[in-house]
Amino acid sequence: MVNTSPSSDCSAKQVLQSVDKVVSLLSDVPVRKGKIRSYALKDALNKALAEDIYSGINVPPSANSAVDGYALRLEDWQAGLSLPVSDRITAGAAPGPLKPGTVARIFTGATIPEGADAVVMQEYTLTTEDSQINIEQAPQRQDNIRPEGQDVAEGDLILNKGQILSPHRLGLLASIGQANVKAYAPLTVAMMSTGDELLEPGQAAAPGQIYNSNRYLLDGLLQSLGFTVLDLGVVPDNADATRSALQSAAQQADVILTTGGASVGEEDHIRAAISDLGQVDLWRVAIKPGKPFMFGNIQGVPVCGLPGNPGAVLITFLMLVKPFLLKQQGFQSCREQGMQLQLGFGLHKPGPRREYLRVMVGDDGRLIRHPNQSSGMLSSASWAQGLAIIPEHQLCKENDVVTYLPFSSLLHLPAV
Amino acid sequence: MVNTSPSSDCSAKQVLQSVDKVVSLLSDVPVRKGKIRSYALKDALNKALAEDIYSGINVPPSANSAVDGYALRLEDWQAGLSLPVSDRITAGAAPGPLKPGTVARIFTGATIPEGADAVVMQEYTLTTEDSQINIEQAPQRQDNIRPEGQDVAEGDLILNKGQILSPHRLGLLASIGQANVKAYAPLTVAMMSTGDELLEPGQAAAPGQIYNSNRYLLDGLLQSLGFTVLDLGVVPDNADATRSALQSAAQQADVILTTGGASVGEEDHIRAAISDLGQVDLWRVAIKPGKPFMFGNIQGVPVCGLPGNPGAVLITFLMLVKPFLLKQQGFQSCREQGMQLQLGFGLHKPGPRREYLRVMVGDDGRLIRHPNQSSGMLSSASWAQGLAIIPEHQLCKENDVVTYLPFSSLLHLPAV
Repeated sequence: MVNTSPSSDCSAKQVLQSVDKVVSLLSDVPVRKGKIRSYALKDALNKALAEDIYSGINVPPSANSAVDGYALRLEDWQAGLSLPVSDRITAGAAPGPLKPGTVARIFTGATIPEGADAVVMQEYTLTTEDSQINIEQAPQRQDNIRPEGQDVAEGDLILNKGQILSPHRLGLLASIGQANVKAYAPLTVAMMSTGDELLEPGQAAAPGQIYNSNRYLLDGLLQSLGFTVLDLGVVPDNADATRSALQSAAQQADVILTTGGASVGEEDHIRAAISDLGQVDLWRVAIKPGKPFMFGNIQGVPVCGLPGNPGAVLITFLMLVKPFLLKQQGFQSCREQGMQLQLGFGLHKPGPRREYLRVMVGDDGRLIRHPNQSSGMLSSASWAQGLAIIPEHQLCKENDVVTYLPFSSLLHLPAV
Repeated sequence: MVNTSPSSDCSAKQVLQSVDKVVSLLSDVPVRKGKIRSYALKDALNKALAEDIYSGINVPPSANSAVDGYALRLEDWQAGLSLPVSDRITAGAAPGPLKPGTVARIFTGATIPEGADAVVMQEYTLTTEDSQINIEQAPQRQDNIRPEGQDVAEGDLILNKGQILSPHRLGLLASIGQANVKAYAPLTVAMMSTGDELLEPGQAAAPGQIYNSNRYLLDGLLQSLGFTVLDLGVVPDNADATRSALQSAAQQADVILTTGGASVGEEDHIRAAISDLGQVDLWRVAIKPGKPFMFGNIQGVPVCGLPGNPGAVLITFLMLVKPFLLKQQGFQSCREQGMQLQLGFGLHKPGPRREYLRVMVGDDGRLIRHPNQSSGMLSSASWAQGLAIIPEHQLCKENDVVTYLPFSSLLHLPAV
């Protein structure tokens, strides 16, 4: 009696790599960053900045008033004394010096006239019958004056290469007068599914067929992160078709994602094809769901081989592929900010894999898990608000504190 | 001596409305939801679902194998007995019934043949010299079989009107065979800035002028949330121009946002123009930064009057305008999931307004605030990872726990 099943392939027994190890290996892959382009600010939203930005000006460019009121020289103030109004300075005007012994009516954002060293809010003034201004309380030096360069000083490094161009950073760039900015053009990410059972939604299903959900799941994940998606559809389950699809993807894309066929079965052709055309670096990860994850390259183009089950595609994409893609795109940081929350349930036994449970936050602030965590399920992910991380080899009891990652940040670019 | 300054306007002393009160008032504004359109799945990403979705099918449509292995009838198993292989069932195939006294080679995702009631993983089998299969351990009923309808049962309500069409929900729709989905078309949000001091980036600044940062900040915020932006540029600081710009905006847009000019100064024309053309419902909010926030409508089109300082625009947009816009767009929930974190600093005294501090999370997990929280500053927001909420009338000491909202979720659509 001899064992001739495919399980005799020694790789099938290859040790599981930890999630941390795989994330670290992927972060060491040489970075392919998109081409650097100059974008108008509005077109640069959420791209990775490709240059350090120094300000050429002070913001604000000159001291201005924080309120509507009256500008004065402190030396002119005396209790009970009224001062005449010598000027009216609106935002955008370039005032002359403040005439000694007078005040200037001034509005929010307007330039402080030379000589003035405080602004008094209009609410703290009285106007006399002959239109002079009486200031009730003693003003302090610099009251209601926003100094020149308060926000940004000329020469300041205001943004770093690799930061995300979030809305407020675009506002900051505008405030220093910059109309364009250099950023990394989005990488092209090819995606393909394998599986002869896969059918497109909208078509009538024959027995044995299932609809291809991974295509829409991955397309949405990639779109949300700003990548250019090259959708190569479904590849037939045979070695030749798999090889030629991968070869064509490597010629057109910066990164290739596949779903399904990454395991060791006779019907799994992805891994063999990548071995033929390039190199398989790692596969089988201690992650649940998502164990049959594979990584390699074809002529230097990285290939992530995701599992075929959509629940496992979602988790491996978010935990392994997303940080990899963001680094490849030129983003400096991809770290998720998790919350520390209590489990509203206990687990029976520790597992050898790090588990990502689909959970909601209950009214009592504790996590509730979906009753069915099968890797094949998308309905549980649709129900969930995020993922709870159950560390490998650790028994988690009710009320233990674990890390919770909300989908609201998992599904988007980080804001750092 | 009489007080004739603009501060005598009774509205200037109008009581501050709390943030909670304003959010609640805004959530009661009649909803304008975009037109309902049918979208192909890939075009529906992150839109608000406009229908309840019931599944017309079971997912999976028939029981299938969770592993690569052998399907058998339990009644045929005996320790030490080998069974011949009568079929080879790949994913996508429609097998006939399993011949009694035999096993079927079966692959992950393939349909379970009629009569089989367990699948044994190939790793737990041995192949004899005459190609029969010996199953070492006693299998249990339903081992490695994913039952029909495990993910979704025919007739199930799988998604609710108002939910966001996140990537995994698009995957779920695909899995039930749906190629199109009804969603609300994005609302058109008009934005305009007021301020004669404002200059476009890229132009040379004259004394007294500053670059318009709010335009790029707001455009980015609106783009990130999927709205159609109608950019009406800068409106000159006078009553006629303000009125005519607002009137034109009300004819083209579903909601209008303005920045600047919402206060009570002689140079602030927004409020007067809205009063003339429609109605001002509330203004002055107990929020810091952002007090001079205004809300009203022109011929039923809602107008949010944001402050002129960009730091205040960011905060009032995220805390007041965003939940309002999402509700108007048809999203069911706009609640932010905050984290409870300790302050790494203490505050000197309680304030009458709820304060949103620009903060980072330090290495010790406590919050660090930017030294300058001026409403005019965007550099502090660019530095920050999120906002810490300091409740009104509350003295916060070092190590007190407050709610922290990370920009990673604040700047995006919620995932619920």
